Amino acid sequence: MKLSGVMPPISTPFQDGKLDVDKLRKNFQKWNKTALSGYLVLGSNGEAVFLSEKEKTRVVEASRESIPASKVMLVGPGMESTQETIRFTNETARMGADCALVVTPSYFKGSMKPKILYDHFIAVADSSRIGILLYNVPQFTGINLEPEWVAKLSQHPNIIGIKDSSGNIGQLSEIISLSQKGFAIFVGSAPVFFPALCVGAVGGILAVANVVPQECVQIQTLFRKRKFDEARALQNRLTPLAKAVTTKYGIGGLKLAMDLAGYFGGNPRSPLKRPDREVEEELKGLLAQLKKANTNPKAG
Amino acid sequence: MKLSGVMPPISTPFQDGKLDVDKLRKNFQKWNKTALSGYLVLGSNGEAVFLSEKEKTRVVEASRESIPASKVMLVGPGMESTQETIRFTNETARMGADCALVVTPSYFKGSMKPKILYDHFIAVADSSRIGILLYNVPQFTGINLEPEWVAKLSQHPNIIGIKDSSGNIGQLSEIISLSQKGFAIFVGSAPVFFPALCVGAVGGILAVANVVPQECVQIQTLFRKRKFDEARALQNRLTPLAKAVTTKYGIGGLKLAMDLAGYFGGNPRSPLKRPDREVEEELKGLLAQLKKANTNPKAG
Amino acid sequence: MKLSGVMPPISTPFQDGKLDVDKLRKNFQKWNKTALSGYLVLGSNGEAVFLSEKEKTRVVEASRESIPASKVMLVGPGMESTQETIRFTNETARMGADCALVVTPSYFKGSMKPKILYDHFIAVADSSRIGILLYNVPQFTGINLEPEWVAKLSQHPNIIGIKDSSGNIGQLSEIISLSQKGFAIFVGSAPVFFPALCVGAVGGILAVANVVPQECVQIQTLFRKRKFDEARALQNRLTPLAKAVTTKYGIGGLKLAMDLAGYFGGNPRSPLKRPDREVEEELKGLLAQLKKANTNPKAG
Amino acid sequence: MKLSGVMPPISTPFQDGKLDVDKLRKNFQKWNKTALSGYLVLGSNGEAVFLSEKEKTRVVEASRESIPASKVMLVGPGMESTQETIRFTNETARMGADCALVVTPSYFKGSMKPKILYDHFIAVADSSRIGILLYNVPQFTGINLEPEWVAKLSQHPNIIGIKDSSGNIGQLSEIISLSQKGFAIFVGSAPVFFPALCVGAVGGILAVANVVPQECVQIQTLFRKRKFDEARALQNRLTPLAKAVTTKYGIGGLKLAMDLAGYFGGNPRSPLKRPDREVEEELKGLLAQLKKANTNPKAG
Repeated sequence: MKLSGVMPPISTPFQDGKLDVDKLRKNFQKWNKTALSGYLVLGSNGEAVFLSEKEKTRVVEASRESIPASKVMLVGPGMESTQETIRFTNETARMGADCALVVTPSYFKGSMKPKILYDHFIAVADSSRIGILLYNVPQFTGINLEPEWVAKLSQHPNIIGIKDSSGNIGQLSEIISLSQKGFAIFVGSAPVFFPALCVGAVGGILAVANVVPQECVQIQTLFRKRKFDEARALQNRLTPLAKAVTTKYGIGGLKLAMDLAGYFGGNPRSPLKRPDREVEEELKGLLAQLKKANTNPKAG
Repeated sequence: MKLSGVMPPISTPFQDGKLDVDKLRKNFQKWNKTALSGYLVLGSNGEAVFLSEKEKTRVVEASRESIPASKVMLVGPGMESTQETIRFTNETARMGADCALVVTPSYFKGSMKPKILYDHFIAVADSSRIGILLYNVPQFTGINLEPEWVAKLSQHPNIIGIKDSSGNIGQLSEIISLSQKGFAIFVGSAPVFFPALCVGAVGGILAVANVVPQECVQIQTLFRKRKFDEARALQNRLTPLAKAVTTKYGIGGLKLAMDLAGYFGGNPRSPLKRPDREVEEELKGLLAQLKKANTNPKAG
Repeated sequence: MKLSGVMPPISTPFQDGKLDVDKLRKNFQKWNKTALSGYLVLGSNGEAVFLSEKEKTRVVEASRESIPASKVMLVGPGMESTQETIRFTNETARMGADCALVVTPSYFKGSMKPKILYDHFIAVADSSRIGILLYNVPQFTGINLEPEWVAKLSQHPNIIGIKDSSGNIGQLSEIISLSQKGFAIFVGSAPVFFPALCVGAVGGILAVANVVPQECVQIQTLFRKRKFDEARALQNRLTPLAKAVTTKYGIGGLKLAMDLAGYFGGNPRSPLKRPDREVEEELKGLLAQLKKANTNPKAG
Repeated sequence: MKLSGVMPPISTPFQDGKLDVDKLRKNFQKWNKTALSGYLVLGSNGEAVFLSEKEKTRVVEASRESIPASKVMLVGPGMESTQETIRFTNETARMGADCALVVTPSYFKGSMKPKILYDHFIAVADSSRIGILLYNVPQFTGINLEPEWVAKLSQHPNIIGIKDSSGNIGQLSEIISLSQKGFAIFVGSAPVFFPALCVGAVGGILAVANVVPQECVQIQTLFRKRKFDEARALQNRLTPLAKAVTTKYGIGGLKLAMDLAGYFGGNPRSPLKRPDREVEEELKGLLAQLKKANTNPKAG
């Protein structure tokens, strides 16, 4: 199991509001043909907060069947209490997850001091049967995991990496510089994928990789080949789409873009909504520009 | 059913990490002897985010048995998805809740535009068998419900009130000024209980009322008797304790103060912690000052 | 000199971008006929940051000539460095200021720790020939002066009061509760003038008092006569205008409203602008509503 | 005049609180021996907000005499009003500044909408006799200049570049991607100097370059030679010192580090303070680590 490369936090398909695992399987058939290194199941972009535990189990099981052994299956248990996080992490391990992405608890923001978060992650790591990755996503949680605390946590043998979605490259650099050698550091924000690679990230867990996996992978391939100018140019073409399907139009925008790119996106659950026609035209334009530019050998 | 007065968002007792409904019943026996007008079950301070649905059901059932018909039983279903909120609201109605306190969904902060929140609340109100109160708590959710949108929602016949925990008295004033006559406006921040009454709130849903219910009720009693100077003086004596059991020491501090005041508090669930001895001494001091001052007729 | 009541932070008139002290004198002639208790000269709303020191001197001198001995003349020196603040405070004292309103330095936000601010105010108070009031305005400075530090500062014999413009009534209550007896506490946010009086403020320094001084004064008069319902009703009618001339349309909106109310407002200096016709209509409407309601004896 | 490379925002020396231009000249003699490409005079780190206009003039004149024609002299006029900014920009031009760094006005935060800022910069650019660079520094101003507005401004022939101190590499990438070809983009945050170069910045205006100019220049030299691993390693060694002399210990820390590195730092003006002995030891340690690592050919 190679912990690096590009993984999408997979979108969860609903048909008339009901979970549709067949559609999920079909998405996997397409994604599996790409050079994606793995998948994050039950992430924020998978609308995990809208799923009952039964639905979560079905998503994990269907994913396990669809993901080949050559690709990583990372699962996000996403609970607030330490005990529940441990219980569900081991439950996902039993269902075949390779490792777990454990988010900072955040409901009681004022109480989530660094030491409280540290103790939470250590307790989960001590009791988890699979390796865990820390998940830092201040834009959803209102909590930021400081580099020096990540460094301390990186010394635990069962804490094997981090997804940092802060978008803060200075912070990512410090995490890389301070943490244990071999600690796998993923960036979780597509508009800074290229600079994250420059400062030493091993890969990206990127919402937009649900839509255009090849283009995301290509940025890292170009980077590895030291074709920096081309990697940067591709990043610049990807960024407008990446921002549209996350910050600007949220999960509804992401799912709409998936439909336009040949995957099944469908509608998000309420209160989220599918964006209107105008946004659809905008997303079509952004996809066309990215695809066109990519097929033009002189572009970038 | 009178929707006004002081209600505590009841604390949930755990013994060795396990839900202990007997302890909850004993707390109710004491609270019921006071002039509290009702109770909020499954609120933030009840650690609802740490409870499984089974545990939530047991808390609601035990509360229903303990709460007399003369007092309001308000329940917080607290879900992110519209469908789940409707389902669990009606489930709590079936178990005997008088009305439901529905929090703003907040996980996907960037997508929670006013119209999205409005549609969510209207959908819940349309399908709920009991009246609903809006719950605005920006310090936990990162989302603020603006007064003009509260005013629009107040026109729905099944949206009967709001708990505003922003602590922003200017905002509370505007909500009161703009919303439908008869809309029940509660403040959710004890340090501004007295000014909230001055601008027209009908009551308070106050964490510190778990600990010192009589003192909280007395502020409103003095206010109703137009003894403003005494009400304000009592508020000033209550404020240091109120801040300690919420902002400063969180749920752990609240539960510790309950133990000191003769209720069962116990430990919060991990990752939250019981504060150390130093905090215990501080809380003892704050309680003693409040109690002493109250028995002294010349105080204030 | 009575340090209480309503004072406007006076607007500074420009004609074709040039300071016009004659217009200022005419405004004073009108304001002086009202029950305003005094004036703040060189405040934020006086566009002090756009004035050269020569212009500041002319504004202070013209104000001194226009303000009768029965009203307080408060001046805001508004400097970042301690030495410059002391120098200009004593300069305004020499020109006849009764007391000085000293803002928290704020440019180097990260360095403005409570002890640094404390030392700054003590140094100014030690060297100032006139009494000083602290000025806390987080929405402009990004700095908040915590109640416990205000309380410490209130013990200095030459620090005689505070203008708190945070709009946070909980904080204002704590300042009042913790600070030295006799310390003059003014609120600087008109939408919370009534609740500020309820918790014990001695008055308000209110931008909207440039436009409708009598209505502002009347809220405090009604409050003193214990006509709370009428005071609150008047506050609710004032709030929409108060928000429009500060938060919503800024200094340009304030000056436009002054023109509509019979004072000289004129244009703000660039980069600020006069709002367009649509805003003018909105402000006219807000003024008409307030005036109409006031002349109707049954209103409120 | 080559607009690229590393420039320090020069520190302003005071002796017993008085401006000491001799000390400044001595600092220039040392800096001039390095490969710094130029200097920013009257920047934030130069304590410009603490200087009278007379003092500013003396600093600019002394700098002009000390800066050779081969290096850029950039001056920060730093005014809130459009007219004053124009006046002082042309004043600095008259004194020999090569170009001006014009900060976003920020005192009236709520009114500083993108169009207002745009009009301000266009007005200054239209009337300035020298080229101007935009200055975006949200941590001091509370205002952020969005990439699409920077792109529009970059089309004005007299707006020749930007210093972006947000530390946000995603934003910097977008500015570079969207703005006019040839627009000179400098990063203003040393901990992200290397990633800024990776995404296409032409240089850095870095506080820590007052202290260790050679090491800052070396990062860019290594980058140009495509020795990316060495550049990144040097960045990682520089970052702890860079954070200490800005975020952590402010101007006082910067000046202390200058003293330790053989320049004249001295004390900042009040209310800022020189840090205590403990900080001095910490800074000594950070400098020693950086220097030691640099002299070791195998390091990095």
